[in-house]
Amino acid sequence: MSAELKLAAFELAERAKVAARQLLRRDRRQLVLDAADVVEKRAAGILGANQVDLAHASDQPAAFIDRLRLDEKRLRAMAAAMREVAALPDPVGEVVESYARPNGLRVERVRAPLGVVLMIYESRPNVTAEAAALCLRSGNAALLRGGSEALQTNSAIAACFPEDAVQLVSPDRALLDELLQLHEQIDLCIPRGGPSLIRFVAERARVPVIKHYQGVCHLYVAADADLAMASRIAVNAKAQRPGVCNALECLLVDVGRAPEALPRLAAALRGAGVELRCDERALPLVAGGVPAMEDDFGREFLDLKLAVAVVDGIDGALRHIARYGSRHTESIVTRDAQLAQRFLNEVDASCVLWNASTRFNDGGELGLGAEIGISTSKLHAYGPMGLRELTCTRYVVRGDGQVRT
Amino acid sequence: MSAELKLAAFELAERAKVAARQLLRRDRRQLVLDAADVVEKRAAGILGANQVDLAHASDQPAAFIDRLRLDEKRLRAMAAAMREVAALPDPVGEVVESYARPNGLRVERVRAPLGVVLMIYESRPNVTAEAAALCLRSGNAALLRGGSEALQTNSAIAACFPEDAVQLVSPDRALLDELLQLHEQIDLCIPRGGPSLIRFVAERARVPVIKHYQGVCHLYVAADADLAMASRIAVNAKAQRPGVCNALECLLVDVGRAPEALPRLAAALRGAGVELRCDERALPLVAGGVPAMEDDFGREFLDLKLAVAVVDGIDGALRHIARYGSRHTESIVTRDAQLAQRFLNEVDASCVLWNASTRFNDGGELGLGAEIGISTSKLHAYGPMGLRELTCTRYVVRGDGQVRT
Repeated sequence: MSAELKLAAFELAERAKVAARQLLRRDRRQLVLDAADVVEKRAAGILGANQVDLAHASDQPAAFIDRLRLDEKRLRAMAAAMREVAALPDPVGEVVESYARPNGLRVERVRAPLGVVLMIYESRPNVTAEAAALCLRSGNAALLRGGSEALQTNSAIAACFPEDAVQLVSPDRALLDELLQLHEQIDLCIPRGGPSLIRFVAERARVPVIKHYQGVCHLYVAADADLAMASRIAVNAKAQRPGVCNALECLLVDVGRAPEALPRLAAALRGAGVELRCDERALPLVAGGVPAMEDDFGREFLDLKLAVAVVDGIDGALRHIARYGSRHTESIVTRDAQLAQRFLNEVDASCVLWNASTRFNDGGELGLGAEIGISTSKLHAYGPMGLRELTCTRYVVRGDGQVRT
Repeated sequence: MSAELKLAAFELAERAKVAARQLLRRDRRQLVLDAADVVEKRAAGILGANQVDLAHASDQPAAFIDRLRLDEKRLRAMAAAMREVAALPDPVGEVVESYARPNGLRVERVRAPLGVVLMIYESRPNVTAEAAALCLRSGNAALLRGGSEALQTNSAIAACFPEDAVQLVSPDRALLDELLQLHEQIDLCIPRGGPSLIRFVAERARVPVIKHYQGVCHLYVAADADLAMASRIAVNAKAQRPGVCNALECLLVDVGRAPEALPRLAAALRGAGVELRCDERALPLVAGGVPAMEDDFGREFLDLKLAVAVVDGIDGALRHIARYGSRHTESIVTRDAQLAQRFLNEVDASCVLWNASTRFNDGGELGLGAEIGISTSKLHAYGPMGLRELTCTRYVVRGDGQVRT
């Protein structure tokens, strides 16, 4: 571990820490609006940088190149998303709670920025703009560590924001390793990416980490379910966008209704092009189904594939989800309010739904305005993280000379 | 690392995890009340176990033995504290936020237990009872890892609670090391103790940790301060109970008022038996003061010793605190509301006070009812942690068949 790298990481993080303190006194909405203007002004430069990244990626698959590519339209959408973040209400300074104590002390809990946020991601360059806007709007300095494939594009975008408050970090694992030790400078690390990246971060970090792990989402069709509704929800949850974390990965059907429900659900899902991987009890009821492998349960397919199992009532469903779920999103279809309530209470997931598609666990859909990701960590933020989740609350106490007796 | 130890840790934590799921359906208030009754019924057994621990500690200092010792009166106080925790409102199920989306989905954010809490502590046996009561009342299973000096007493107390839901963990560093890896079973670790314990935990843990570090608390006396108030607050903050984390460790006096203020503050503090360790500018103004050593700033004395410095206005005070504070508790004395507001906004600490003693950063004093500790971590909980801070919020969504378009 080189001393030079250690020093580089320290200086980077220390600059961010100083910038975070200065942000407390600046107009953070205006800073984001200004950055959006700069993005549009520098459109040609950003698109040029993107061409350089694209040239290096020419032997990659088409989907990869599509994610990486920017054009005029995507750039305008990026600036528009930044302006939407600027327009959101300021979470900083919000008084969450306020009361007086018998001795006259006036106590408030007030939202404050976390300080310095280290964001690790691998996806599209617009994440750079959105994460920077979300951090800045909530008063946090951002260290952005995107993937090497988008380095030139990300640099050009990050340079549109105030320097020090938004810094792009070179995609070097040894440097990341050093940054993850700096718990005096960095208040939060958000890793978004594959399980191996998140494991790397979780194993090494001495800074607090909010993990954004995969979604192994289940839909439990209870014995009394409206089957038309169940089919509609299953098809939407699985097939509308199979590659995302709130897509359905496993269908659980109650044993009491399976003979009627499964053929109907299976027909609808197969009609949407979904391959059905069935456990022993489901297989005979699913025309065209294939036997599930051992590891198909608990698996995030991110594809038009679905695990299917028959379960023994609500207890069977809860046991299955406790064993195979990833605490992301779980849904039940039933007409029975009491049964639904038990599911909603006892399933441990960042978002639990009754008679609705798993696809709704999303910052935009839940009304947060924008999100920096969906946390599967239970501490601090559980579920979609918006501006509010990038703050903490502090106690602010006003007195007139009170001392403790 | 022995396979047997790994397995023992896994089984322990897995039992806690299963118990936590069962707690969701039990009357948690009643469980705590029942445990309080059992503590009283088993008084003789607990005091007998305490005699065994005391016999082993006979060569320890008197203060150590006093902390370890239980008697009838302390036991009754312990049971009373448990009943107070039982009487607190249930945080679980609290609807924090509730709204409808344009598509008719009804969204709630609802409090749920974290799951399994691993508490590490070294202090008095009553912490065992209080931590167990707080965890149980908030629906969490507790793994309690107290110090070896109190092992027999802690075992007897922990056995008054439902087994599996409250387990005492043997004080063995290798076992702790294994437990800290079990991020699938353990949702939160709270280490309370010396910096070396907390560092050990922070370095090894793969489970989320909320740190309860030391308090290096400052009082800034502004140029316009009411000096009678400032003296009263300084003496209370430093001398009322010097050994605790919200005690004052450093006095900052504005350069514009120092010639008048310092002699007066110093006289009051010396009158309370406080040794004053002064920087170069403070020393000539403090009769009987001694020169501060380099490391007296940023130091948690936990004793009748106080670092004293002259600072250049609010900016000097903010710089000093940013450099030497520990994010615990910071206070300002001033008549100027604008100046106070700047201090309250820009100082980063779990509790910031205006015209009040630092001693008020305490769960009981701030009205939380009871506390499991004071967090200096910014994520999840910042400041005193009560029942609410032992929960997370989840999204609960109710629909009538909505799918995403």
